[in-house]
Amino acid sequence: MTNEQPVIVFALFPGVTQLDFTGPHEVFSYLPGASVILASAEGGAIEATGGMTFSGLRRLAEIPECDVVCVPGGRGSTDNAIRDDVFLGELRRLAATARFVTSVCTGSLVLGAAGLLRGRRAATHWAWRDLLAPFGAIADPARVVRDGNVITGGGVTAGIDFALSVVAELAGPEAAQAIQLQIEYAPAPPFDTGCPETAPPAILARVRERTATFAARRRQAVEAAAARLAAG
Amino acid sequence: MTNEQPVIVFALFPGVTQLDFTGPHEVFSYLPGASVILASAEGGAIEATGGMTFSGLRRLAEIPECDVVCVPGGRGSTDNAIRDDVFLGELRRLAATARFVTSVCTGSLVLGAAGLLRGRRAATHWAWRDLLAPFGAIADPARVVRDGNVITGGGVTAGIDFALSVVAELAGPEAAQAIQLQIEYAPAPPFDTGCPETAPPAILARVRERTATFAARRRQAVEAAAARLAAG
Repeated sequence: MTNEQPVIVFALFPGVTQLDFTGPHEVFSYLPGASVILASAEGGAIEATGGMTFSGLRRLAEIPECDVVCVPGGRGSTDNAIRDDVFLGELRRLAATARFVTSVCTGSLVLGAAGLLRGRRAATHWAWRDLLAPFGAIADPARVVRDGNVITGGGVTAGIDFALSVVAELAGPEAAQAIQLQIEYAPAPPFDTGCPETAPPAILARVRERTATFAARRRQAVEAAAARLAAG
Repeated sequence: MTNEQPVIVFALFPGVTQLDFTGPHEVFSYLPGASVILASAEGGAIEATGGMTFSGLRRLAEIPECDVVCVPGGRGSTDNAIRDDVFLGELRRLAATARFVTSVCTGSLVLGAAGLLRGRRAATHWAWRDLLAPFGAIADPARVVRDGNVITGGGVTAGIDFALSVVAELAGPEAAQAIQLQIEYAPAPPFDTGCPETAPPAILARVRERTATFAARRRQAVEAAAARLAAG
């Protein structure tokens, strides 16, 4: 059975990585009948990493239920979302009745902190796969991972592959195929450096050096959240 | 020679297709030292197709010059930009001193209307390639096309491939390779329907039916703009 007017909610937080949700939003916005909603704990406006400001957001608490709830990631800011009990509580509430509980990039760490990934296989950005285990999740290096009603995408641009997969679940493969054609998604990356398995060692080292600047803080946030979950 | 603090301006208009510029914006925002600016004729806020609102935009007239000017496309709304003499005038002004004059998707029709594509090869969304000729441009079906200092991308998601190519020009291939790894751009589309050459006929027919609803209006806007250019 497919809901012909699905409600899809992106749960945002300050410092979110915008392409994690703008990619999927574009895909979902072509789905006839769908309502695609940007929301945050406080509503109003948020600034994404990179300086882009999104306004007109709804408050998560105002949304009674949805078909799909999706949490994007952030560079350093995911750690704040992981620590935000109000945000995590709203995610749990929406997830309880959603048809699909989903994330892109490090959004899966936030799902984990909300206790929504216990025993589930999940994707995340390649640099942070080892941070899923503290939440009882099983890191899966696939670009899009489905385990029961949990669908997760890998880093940033995986959100487009993720969203087309979700559309196929919601409205059938032909709906997804038509959207893929509308957004001319026949990717032709100029280099073959999009994952650690194919990137030259010097490029990988350069990127690891950048993520190392906030790795300790992130691990601390994850471990504290995992401890609260275990206690709670 | 590379400018280590490049200024990159996205020239937006109401009803823009957000992924046309949010994809490239994400790529450029990882480029150390770069200023990435959203601007429009009036500044302030604009609503994209699909209902997303972007605020904090600068006025194009306030930006003295830039290294890269980029025009995204829109579904029906490109036609309004094509008719907007103020917007086209600002594009011409910035293009006169920019290192690269660029577009994604039907943004190339707007560059054409501004008189910036005469004799140039250019990309656009696959459904609208025949509308480049009235502006004296040569439609090129490649995903990213460079002709002199004009770099254009194909439909919507081509913006990511486009932006990585521009970064390689601005800061060298290794900078682009590192960004490609950071955004985990190792695409794995769930279907092989991203361009008309590979999409099944029924899917192609379905999408053509949707674009047909505004094709006549768009052709009219293009022909009127081309006539003004020829006269002017």
